[in-house]
Amino acid sequence: MNLILLSPEDITADGNATIRDPRRLRHLREVHRAAPGQHLTVGVAGGAMGRAELTALNDQQATFHCAPLTQTPPPALPVHLVLALPRPRMLARTLEHVTALGVKDITLLHTRRVEKSYWQSPELAAEKIRRHLVLGLEQARDTVLPEVTLRRGFRPFVEDVLPGLLSTRRGLVAHPGMANACPRGLREPAVLVVGPEGGFIDWEVERLLAAGCEGMHLGPRILRVETAVTALLSRLF
Amino acid sequence: MNLILLSPEDITADGNATIRDPRRLRHLREVHRAAPGQHLTVGVAGGAMGRAELTALNDQQATFHCAPLTQTPPPALPVHLVLALPRPRMLARTLEHVTALGVKDITLLHTRRVEKSYWQSPELAAEKIRRHLVLGLEQARDTVLPEVTLRRGFRPFVEDVLPGLLSTRRGLVAHPGMANACPRGLREPAVLVVGPEGGFIDWEVERLLAAGCEGMHLGPRILRVETAVTALLSRLF
Repeated sequence: MNLILLSPEDITADGNATIRDPRRLRHLREVHRAAPGQHLTVGVAGGAMGRAELTALNDQQATFHCAPLTQTPPPALPVHLVLALPRPRMLARTLEHVTALGVKDITLLHTRRVEKSYWQSPELAAEKIRRHLVLGLEQARDTVLPEVTLRRGFRPFVEDVLPGLLSTRRGLVAHPGMANACPRGLREPAVLVVGPEGGFIDWEVERLLAAGCEGMHLGPRILRVETAVTALLSRLF
Repeated sequence: MNLILLSPEDITADGNATIRDPRRLRHLREVHRAAPGQHLTVGVAGGAMGRAELTALNDQQATFHCAPLTQTPPPALPVHLVLALPRPRMLARTLEHVTALGVKDITLLHTRRVEKSYWQSPELAAEKIRRHLVLGLEQARDTVLPEVTLRRGFRPFVEDVLPGLLSTRRGLVAHPGMANACPRGLREPAVLVVGPEGGFIDWEVERLLAAGCEGMHLGPRILRVETAVTALLSRLF
């Protein structure tokens, strides 16, 4: 937890803020070994960041006095990530990685090789997803929550949504066996489409290419989704 | 498990191989839903890969008949990774990521901000480390186990070992606040040095630079070690 994320309504007019959730109180005590007088980095969800002094800490709450928050959060990655829904534990970790890396737009997509049961997972509850996004922001010192959209139909997404995304972005599909290697150091916004663990089926790749995406690969190694997505984002941007 | 890793002594002269460990037997049954007659990818530790036919599967063992194994494993990354020892769970995941990405030389190093208790972790037992390396190889379809060396002294490593590594490799230290961004698409072998979660102390950075490493950074975001290492390797190679 390299940043304490506050809601705008958490901060009083005179700059005091209080947090009460057990997870962060425990982290302050056990990891930060925080004590009153110590300065920590805080940020307002969707807004600015800065330093705050811990003024009180007990089992029920921590109170901070925030200096004026004037620091802007780090730049976002100019990418819309379209990810075939991974299995629940992989989803959780992948959301944390990509949020920490600065992704702000995430679409979780059904494809043929996504197990249908994954769509019933409690991990897809908005509150569960938000928890992983917050962990990613706390890690990377960022305040801007990504937007996550669930798309349970491949064809409606590719036909009705993807063309709009591609009107202002370069589309890239990561898929083994494509002719070109993943490009490096893009200078334009992109849509990055990543398949499920078993890969896209041929028909899905054809539809994505027909919609205007370029195919590319990351080399001969088969990577887990969480490793592949981090590697792709780091090579692209 | 995209590859079944065999020891050379597991394969008889007529190309039959048997595995008996419960983990892989369970994976074959529950994830692959494997049945006799099915073909799977196998590889010999340190050697070639190819296809094998599952000839029998029960609760005690799986038997394969291997076609001549003629495929070479995927190329290694030309990097020696020097990593400040992460906390045990992070170490486990990081070993799996970097093995899947093709790292073959890993030094786990003590630095000031590595908690001393990490060196007492059972996760550092050779058999535990090997388990994570094997998981990485099984994931990426590779057969060549990385070599992992533990270095409990920072100064002896930097003074006595690092100069030899740097005699034929470009040294790069990832550290926030360095002047240059992480280079892209290296064409030469490298030593990549990555600090602990709290970072190197100034004196350590000075010693690494004095030994001939270049400093570089990955941007303003603070990443977990496992995310940072994957991102660095993917950007460098």
